Amino acid sequence: MTIATAISELSTVLGDALSTSKADLEAHGRSESHFPLTPPDAVVRPRSTEEVAQVVRICAAHGCPVVGWGAGTSLEGHALALRGGVVVDFTDMAAVLEIRPEDRIARIQPGLTRERLNEELRATGLFFPVDPGADASLGGMASTRASGTTTVRYGSMRDNVAGLQVVLADGTVIRTGTQAAKSAAGYDLTALFVGAEGTLGLITELTLRLHGQPEAISAGICAFDAIEGAVDAAIEVIQTGLPVARIEFVDAATVAAVNAHSKADFPPRPHLLVEFHGAEDSVARDAARFARIAADHGATGIDHATRAEDRRRLWQMRHHAYWAILASRPGARAIVTDVCVPISALARAVAETRADIDASPIPGPILGHVGDGNFHAILLIDPENGDERAAAMRLSASMADRALRLGGTVSGEHGIGAGKLGYMAAEHGPAWAVMGRIRAALDPAGLMNPGKLVGET
Amino acid sequence: MTIATAISELSTVLGDALSTSKADLEAHGRSESHFPLTPPDAVVRPRSTEEVAQVVRICAAHGCPVVGWGAGTSLEGHALALRGGVVVDFTDMAAVLEIRPEDRIARIQPGLTRERLNEELRATGLFFPVDPGADASLGGMASTRASGTTTVRYGSMRDNVAGLQVVLADGTVIRTGTQAAKSAAGYDLTALFVGAEGTLGLITELTLRLHGQPEAISAGICAFDAIEGAVDAAIEVIQTGLPVARIEFVDAATVAAVNAHSKADFPPRPHLLVEFHGAEDSVARDAARFARIAADHGATGIDHATRAEDRRRLWQMRHHAYWAILASRPGARAIVTDVCVPISALARAVAETRADIDASPIPGPILGHVGDGNFHAILLIDPENGDERAAAMRLSASMADRALRLGGTVSGEHGIGAGKLGYMAAEHGPAWAVMGRIRAALDPAGLMNPGKLVGET
Repeated sequence: MTIATAISELSTVLGDALSTSKADLEAHGRSESHFPLTPPDAVVRPRSTEEVAQVVRICAAHGCPVVGWGAGTSLEGHALALRGGVVVDFTDMAAVLEIRPEDRIARIQPGLTRERLNEELRATGLFFPVDPGADASLGGMASTRASGTTTVRYGSMRDNVAGLQVVLADGTVIRTGTQAAKSAAGYDLTALFVGAEGTLGLITELTLRLHGQPEAISAGICAFDAIEGAVDAAIEVIQTGLPVARIEFVDAATVAAVNAHSKADFPPRPHLLVEFHGAEDSVARDAARFARIAADHGATGIDHATRAEDRRRLWQMRHHAYWAILASRPGARAIVTDVCVPISALARAVAETRADIDASPIPGPILGHVGDGNFHAILLIDPENGDERAAAMRLSASMADRALRLGGTVSGEHGIGAGKLGYMAAEHGPAWAVMGRIRAALDPAGLMNPGKLVGET
Repeated sequence: MTIATAISELSTVLGDALSTSKADLEAHGRSESHFPLTPPDAVVRPRSTEEVAQVVRICAAHGCPVVGWGAGTSLEGHALALRGGVVVDFTDMAAVLEIRPEDRIARIQPGLTRERLNEELRATGLFFPVDPGADASLGGMASTRASGTTTVRYGSMRDNVAGLQVVLADGTVIRTGTQAAKSAAGYDLTALFVGAEGTLGLITELTLRLHGQPEAISAGICAFDAIEGAVDAAIEVIQTGLPVARIEFVDAATVAAVNAHSKADFPPRPHLLVEFHGAEDSVARDAARFARIAADHGATGIDHATRAEDRRRLWQMRHHAYWAILASRPGARAIVTDVCVPISALARAVAETRADIDASPIPGPILGHVGDGNFHAILLIDPENGDERAAAMRLSASMADRALRLGGTVSGEHGIGAGKLGYMAAEHGPAWAVMGRIRAALDPAGLMNPGKLVGET
């Protein structure tokens, strides 16, 4: 029972589809975030579900951990092989298998990225809405229950995955879900695997729900004197039921970073960016209602755009924000926090977080999908400076504690991975042990992505 | 380890909240459907989560089955104590615990019915949308993953339960979910317990998502010459993305039954009934678009209504349908089928089902939530006639087989219970055994609602 035996056996079966080159191992040992380099023992690139099942069976026979890998864009170290073993990279399983416009579903392989799917869909008049920012793989997005800018209107991966094919820890291949719009037949296994972070099996196929491209889109942007005005306006938008398709908040530090990075000249103050989808007259009416709410909270310079290139210009600030913030402190690494609170607690959560960061020694712009009560601080640390890292971890912990105190969650969208395991007991109490019992039932040896989401068995 | 010992111990603890009267046992041994009388050994009416946990712990210690009971409106025998034991009736746990309009959530006890919740919500401008027809308990609706007329717009219980409190098989009390709009923190236990039909634990509290009462509502009704026209019109409504809030189909036999029962004079032909929710001008526009689609498929006599009393008149046909159909054959019992197919397969599924029933010796009007691809046949049998019962079971089986062949599910909304256990292997293949493993992990003795949903362990 050794990892080495598993790899030697896999190599015979997979040939070129297995790699142990240093470059490959290191590329699959890195994450977008602050985790140390953690190379796996081998990387495999299966070409079919049957090959994935073979990989899992061989690994099971030799006690070798198995970790799925999509596009490597996770922020919580989800795809790092913390106990060594094999990373299963889905690059070569990235096909669109079937598009059924008449049922508004698409069947795809897990390595496909969301932007490529939307390119394939363009001619159908349909699109896949979940947009976490990065051009993540759809298998990874399902595994982490990704959401993002459009979730306030179209839901998260929880709402947009109709069914899955999954290879379990013993190599069994199952299908979950249905192509019908709903079902009351049995446990919702689709929902169980969505967000399971690869700890219950590897997703090898997804059936996704598609949506009609809106007849018209209206985007808007406006600046506020203070954070409170922007956040209170977002809260009023949600509480009055204005059907916003996106509503994003960026603070003054984010805007300053974007201005410096993109040679833009947005007023260096907190902003809201919104988008409405629908019939032409209804998006116009919604945009006008938004403008009134924003003005009531002190917004100025409200700018609207309906043509695609003008909307792109408005949204560039949001799209460039992460990279602009990273570039604002050369040499820094980012610790990206992610909490989500009930909308009624959002103003307090953001204000207290802002004050905490301002009192700390490190910079940390705040931005987020405020329509969901979801926001991030991007804490910039000198990776060589232990004090800064400690300060960031303290800030991150106090954000998580505050989110729980306010009835929210320690992760709105980035997931648990390795980074947030320490908060699971506090968020879930005895329900965390129930997750452990489910994991033990489906993967008694604990070989599927060990060290993530559930406690060690 | 006997049921009798458990009941004697429960009686000491619960006093009046336990009953073994013949009337009580029989009332809890009946179902709305065709299952034989199956009285439990005792009925308990706990008044708190702690009492439910006590009941479950005592039952666990003595090997006594535990079955939840809401309003007794299940159509698949979900709440029948097939292995004897204790029925836990939630009548005395029916309180609204908290309404938080600012977060659009309500915290309630499981015995509360959906109509009572909506009465409590009236003054808030919010409502709870899931409408299965019957005034079911919300705990039962969650346990069976109920849906209904408004699911095409607002989703099912899967989409409208934000969190739960559950008593597990060993008496542990857990909380699932969050008050935030979304979370990526761990397995989606809420989704696992919704639709688990009481086989994983008893729901003792629900946090539900509320929706804004629409500014305007427009209802419409129209008759078609043939089933095909009505179904094709419904399919076009969905495929073109017309944002319908309800779209119900009733066939000619249903209309005839309603006319006879309610002294109405609807044309005895297939009908569609629709409803649009939104701003006044947008529902008017949507209603006009619907009228054009319906006319293209041969509809005549399209009638619209926006005032509440006029809408009630239009909808009376749908609301009375089940009782009218039952009354159309005095002395008959109903076997109500429930399949759901991808919208592209709906026309074929309905047409083949109609032809099958017409070729059989029993009457079976068809109606359904066609926007979801979900429809029912109400098969009327003489309960004393074995041939008729056998014919109904054959029709029901061929509907289920057809739904699976067309990519759908054997239950859109009524659930599995005792009635559809025989189809689970065909629908889920090896995934059904995964459900069994989860059940075994959380309830190793198999005492929570035994005989339902999962295979015997």
